[in-house]
Amino acid sequence: MTRPLGVAVVGFGWMGHAHTRAYLRVRHQYPDLPIVPHLVTVADPEPGRAEAAAAQYGFATAATDWRDVLADPRVEAVSVTAPNFLHREIGAAVAESGRHLWIEKPVGLTGDDARRVAGAATTAGVRSTVGFNYRAAPAVAEARALIAGGAIGRVTNARFRFFSDYAAHPDGALSWRFTRSHGGSGVLGDLASHAVDLARHLLGDIEALVADTTTVIPSRPTVTGAASHFSRADGPPGPVENEDHVHALLRFAGGARGVLEASRVAVGEQNTYGFEVHGTTGALAWDFRRMGELSVSTGADYQSQSYRTVFAGPGQGDFGAFQPGAGIAMSYDDTKVIEAAGFLRSIADDTPYGPTLDDAVAAAVVLDAMLDSVRTGAWVSL
Amino acid sequence: MTRPLGVAVVGFGWMGHAHTRAYLRVRHQYPDLPIVPHLVTVADPEPGRAEAAAAQYGFATAATDWRDVLADPRVEAVSVTAPNFLHREIGAAVAESGRHLWIEKPVGLTGDDARRVAGAATTAGVRSTVGFNYRAAPAVAEARALIAGGAIGRVTNARFRFFSDYAAHPDGALSWRFTRSHGGSGVLGDLASHAVDLARHLLGDIEALVADTTTVIPSRPTVTGAASHFSRADGPPGPVENEDHVHALLRFAGGARGVLEASRVAVGEQNTYGFEVHGTTGALAWDFRRMGELSVSTGADYQSQSYRTVFAGPGQGDFGAFQPGAGIAMSYDDTKVIEAAGFLRSIADDTPYGPTLDDAVAAAVVLDAMLDSVRTGAWVSL
Amino acid sequence: MTRPLGVAVVGFGWMGHAHTRAYLRVRHQYPDLPIVPHLVTVADPEPGRAEAAAAQYGFATAATDWRDVLADPRVEAVSVTAPNFLHREIGAAVAESGRHLWIEKPVGLTGDDARRVAGAATTAGVRSTVGFNYRAAPAVAEARALIAGGAIGRVTNARFRFFSDYAAHPDGALSWRFTRSHGGSGVLGDLASHAVDLARHLLGDIEALVADTTTVIPSRPTVTGAASHFSRADGPPGPVENEDHVHALLRFAGGARGVLEASRVAVGEQNTYGFEVHGTTGALAWDFRRMGELSVSTGADYQSQSYRTVFAGPGQGDFGAFQPGAGIAMSYDDTKVIEAAGFLRSIADDTPYGPTLDDAVAAAVVLDAMLDSVRTGAWVSL
Amino acid sequence: MTRPLGVAVVGFGWMGHAHTRAYLRVRHQYPDLPIVPHLVTVADPEPGRAEAAAAQYGFATAATDWRDVLADPRVEAVSVTAPNFLHREIGAAVAESGRHLWIEKPVGLTGDDARRVAGAATTAGVRSTVGFNYRAAPAVAEARALIAGGAIGRVTNARFRFFSDYAAHPDGALSWRFTRSHGGSGVLGDLASHAVDLARHLLGDIEALVADTTTVIPSRPTVTGAASHFSRADGPPGPVENEDHVHALLRFAGGARGVLEASRVAVGEQNTYGFEVHGTTGALAWDFRRMGELSVSTGADYQSQSYRTVFAGPGQGDFGAFQPGAGIAMSYDDTKVIEAAGFLRSIADDTPYGPTLDDAVAAAVVLDAMLDSVRTGAWVSL
Repeated sequence: MTRPLGVAVVGFGWMGHAHTRAYLRVRHQYPDLPIVPHLVTVADPEPGRAEAAAAQYGFATAATDWRDVLADPRVEAVSVTAPNFLHREIGAAVAESGRHLWIEKPVGLTGDDARRVAGAATTAGVRSTVGFNYRAAPAVAEARALIAGGAIGRVTNARFRFFSDYAAHPDGALSWRFTRSHGGSGVLGDLASHAVDLARHLLGDIEALVADTTTVIPSRPTVTGAASHFSRADGPPGPVENEDHVHALLRFAGGARGVLEASRVAVGEQNTYGFEVHGTTGALAWDFRRMGELSVSTGADYQSQSYRTVFAGPGQGDFGAFQPGAGIAMSYDDTKVIEAAGFLRSIADDTPYGPTLDDAVAAAVVLDAMLDSVRTGAWVSL
Repeated sequence: MTRPLGVAVVGFGWMGHAHTRAYLRVRHQYPDLPIVPHLVTVADPEPGRAEAAAAQYGFATAATDWRDVLADPRVEAVSVTAPNFLHREIGAAVAESGRHLWIEKPVGLTGDDARRVAGAATTAGVRSTVGFNYRAAPAVAEARALIAGGAIGRVTNARFRFFSDYAAHPDGALSWRFTRSHGGSGVLGDLASHAVDLARHLLGDIEALVADTTTVIPSRPTVTGAASHFSRADGPPGPVENEDHVHALLRFAGGARGVLEASRVAVGEQNTYGFEVHGTTGALAWDFRRMGELSVSTGADYQSQSYRTVFAGPGQGDFGAFQPGAGIAMSYDDTKVIEAAGFLRSIADDTPYGPTLDDAVAAAVVLDAMLDSVRTGAWVSL
Repeated sequence: MTRPLGVAVVGFGWMGHAHTRAYLRVRHQYPDLPIVPHLVTVADPEPGRAEAAAAQYGFATAATDWRDVLADPRVEAVSVTAPNFLHREIGAAVAESGRHLWIEKPVGLTGDDARRVAGAATTAGVRSTVGFNYRAAPAVAEARALIAGGAIGRVTNARFRFFSDYAAHPDGALSWRFTRSHGGSGVLGDLASHAVDLARHLLGDIEALVADTTTVIPSRPTVTGAASHFSRADGPPGPVENEDHVHALLRFAGGARGVLEASRVAVGEQNTYGFEVHGTTGALAWDFRRMGELSVSTGADYQSQSYRTVFAGPGQGDFGAFQPGAGIAMSYDDTKVIEAAGFLRSIADDTPYGPTLDDAVAAAVVLDAMLDSVRTGAWVSL
Repeated sequence: MTRPLGVAVVGFGWMGHAHTRAYLRVRHQYPDLPIVPHLVTVADPEPGRAEAAAAQYGFATAATDWRDVLADPRVEAVSVTAPNFLHREIGAAVAESGRHLWIEKPVGLTGDDARRVAGAATTAGVRSTVGFNYRAAPAVAEARALIAGGAIGRVTNARFRFFSDYAAHPDGALSWRFTRSHGGSGVLGDLASHAVDLARHLLGDIEALVADTTTVIPSRPTVTGAASHFSRADGPPGPVENEDHVHALLRFAGGARGVLEASRVAVGEQNTYGFEVHGTTGALAWDFRRMGELSVSTGADYQSQSYRTVFAGPGQGDFGAFQPGAGIAMSYDDTKVIEAAGFLRSIADDTPYGPTLDDAVAAAVVLDAMLDSVRTGAWVSL
């Protein structure tokens, strides 16, 4: 009734853990899944890390070189959770080797990178899922369902915001994350990509935008040796090459207008990720920090409407696979389990499910357009 | 020790009431004021309205024509609370007649209008105050003091939002408010003007912007006879000529970036007027609906900072003139009393105090630039 | 059409100001009132204070002895805003002199005191209003209307809380407020009286209770000379004789159960005054710090209901006498204007309106029962 | 380095799933645990349910009779997640068989039941953990650490509330949950037990209390055949035998006073589980619905203090075992993983860790005292 699927994980930072835990949990939360993942192998170039992962989670083997993963015939699907600048090369190779691909966002550093990987997947005929996990939160699923069902009328305007303080301290080390070659466009790929995906997921295609960016902390202390990009350093200062903050005005194909903002240096904001959508007869708002809550304004008298706070529960998105009653907390990791379930189901049914490489390309194109807009100082059509 | 000042009010809608009540209360809240206003006369073209105002509040006389107000030698200062499209003519005439001028925002429909009135005031050497009353909220005064004092470091980005649902219903009558000739640029003058003033008040000059506008409800039912612009109608549809919604990206002279939004058709938002300001070491947020609260994030470890909710109290802005302890509610009308006190003090000291016609001009120039940006599809420098 | 009413104010602390301002504003907010108050005289024993009040607000005369007020034939109604321990003597004398009486809560220090004043008023046939002003908040009026109209079904349980930090600092001076003879039962009269009144106002009579009290800060520094009860002192410690904190379980005659709490030493709580009421089909909550907001949970599916935040607006309580649209802030002082309007209307119509001395007696009886319960360690029936 | 531990689960409702998932995840979240659980067997009397559990989670065998579990020599530890009325018999038998015991709360229906199980565990020398999982929330752990460290001074008063609407609908079936013999004291064991445990965990022993209870919905429709206690029914009405609502005043041995409330019929409240603790220099509040947030009021000037919202992060409780940064959501299930880790660690170290049967006894004694207080109408000393 179920068939096993050999899976591998490439890159073992936070997301490597998250994907692995999702593989381990997915059949416990979704007992009806026709495919059950088995942990075959894991790769990470940092000495000892892959072995530790194997010991912790039960991968059969471990490697330092991701190419060894592709050489293993037991591997049928691969999670690519390596640093973003490696996504193009690894992602394309995974697809070309005929493996299904669960890849973290952003898929590479540019739209071209994303297209390269997406093209490889299409050519190879493999399934893909991209780690736009905020879609998976039941309250977000409910927001999408409400919008699609007309509960707030025609969407008129919206705001999407992803603010974090992870790089807010000026003594934070000048890691690869702050270089153009390895960290790409900084906050755009890291956080704005999520905002763009949610915008598209809820409101559809963006047809034009104008953007502005800033590098709030232009130089940071360098480090000697390997340093975490979150640790503090005190070496001589070196230049930050990419963006700390981006904001943009959006025009959606459906007529709505929007504002999108993302920052990695927003003091006071640990994970202020969310949106607010207004329509002609109602409104919605969501904030990841209160992941299970959706603020909803709908009703007969849509002038003087109030917002109500709805706690997600069974029947909203995939909530029912996790908890029996509204208001019982789900976790960030649960969103990755939902993502894993979608990935496996897409393989089982050979049909796209959830966010795919096409979505990654679409988001990357929007981010590229933001950079274009900054360069030209003008609106850019998509 | 105190001297009386003969005051008049021109135009008796909501703001006429608010100014009059402020004149009546100001010496009770500010017993040390050297000038005490006396209600001389009131004018409104609608039959009976000025008389009713005189009866309710104790004006000595009433008139239908504002020119009669200027003919009255007892009048030393005039509140202009007539519809916006009359501000230019009346405002300039008041100043030219040598009366001090407390005028509601926006001062006319364009920057040119505001400049005309400001020029007249300068030439005449009279004092002016403009009704940018949100500045007067003690929590806003505290926000400004915190920013100026460096409590949040260098300001990096900010958001200003004025959302209302007063025109959200499509059956709302096509009143003068929706015409270009009388309602000007719609939500820009009505609500965005406040947002611009707060942005300037807290962060200083705006040096460039790009904006977008929409008319969400393009036609509305016409009415026969005089109709309130808030009542519903069912006549044949006529075109809405001005803006329902505006949003813009801002660049401040001091280096900060900002987003400004205003809407008169935002379902779910009765008076969602507020701001959020981020700096390199802290952040602040305020929402008019909870006028006495300021969210503040400051501290030694400015990564992982939390927000605290501070209730305004004595020592913050003019709070102490109204209530004895933190957390005791002040009202919208209290902000107009603060404004009145500033107006009278500026006359007593012959020095500007609070928002003046120069601020009105500055705000109007920003609004004009937003319209320019919409026309050109490009950034506009100021 | 309107007739003047000569009013006097006895005692000129915060509440003296608040009553006076209310008298001055009431006809401006309620132009249809048949009675218009005129400020005749003011009395306060502290040298110069009454004169200052007269200068600030326009009383015709000033006195140090409250008996002079009653000797003035122009006085037709009196506000008693003196310290609580004087309420019995002054209140009864006012009533016996045939003047209508607007008296602050608590009416004296005990139920006996309140009965004494109420009896005098009944005998004299004068009208009374008691300063239970939280009833006047439009959101509270709306809560009462919703409950009375069955919107939340049969009330099952409720919580009433009045927490303040005004005496939270142990260095706060040992003023009269902390003595049994002058400060009565401390937090019971000062804050719990409001909670009891709201409980009765919303849910009806209390039929039994059990209570517990504590004096959290048992001694405070004494002061030499006159000291504000809110200022800090450093004299030798003296004993606090009355209650800092009280809480009680309540049984209402209608079957509902309740919890009531009050504290004057609650760190973190400036004016945490509010209630929460649950019924068989819905629930309500209100907090004075957000005076214009009512949290409401009602709906067809009363399992899994959510709360919505309703901003008070025209049509809810007396809101329309103050502001034109929902969400525009009213002030604490506005609640006293509403109270004044009720007082004047009760005189005009010779019929009770709003909280009266009967309510004061009822509340005082409940407070006495709380003290009884503490003494006996048992439930007390009312 | 690690040793395996054979575990079994008895009873497979929601808590059976939660324990099992926790066993499966615990070594992934806590890689340093010296003991790794292996799923040996599962028992549930409902036909097919144990088999389904075995298939979903990988138990080696399945049974309908819990006695079979104890007959299996591979079983070294047992989770007792059967209905509460079976806890006494099963729990004692598990302990007497020499197995370590992870048992859900309440441990039986009375203090006597809890004592019976605790006595058996002590005699047998086995380790026990009781499912008071709210202790495990990192924000709660932080609250306890702050209180213990003196951050809010001496605790003066507190509130503990557990409100749910699971039985709010009067058409909910009259299941075993509403009988005295099987459902015990209703909301007391089900929800108030958690509140009592949190109260003891944060503030220490309760030395006296007075309580009141109500059965809000006195009769419910009966069902034919097996019915979920959450489903609706339409049979003839039968009597609800136990408590829907309880509230109590508490006196703690340390001098603090408290209020405790629990309801299973609170419309509008899905999982309103939380507390608020005031001390002489600060205050804390927590609500399970926002599990990762702690409201904290501390500071130099503890009069006029404000609350700040702190998002739990690494370093607070066991957060770091789950997520890398503050504000990233943890789940209800994560609290059970923390509980499992404590259980296993207590076995490894042969020392109590986290909530034990002694805590279950202590909580049950408090609940018994509440019922005593209701019977006697008086305070009960503990």
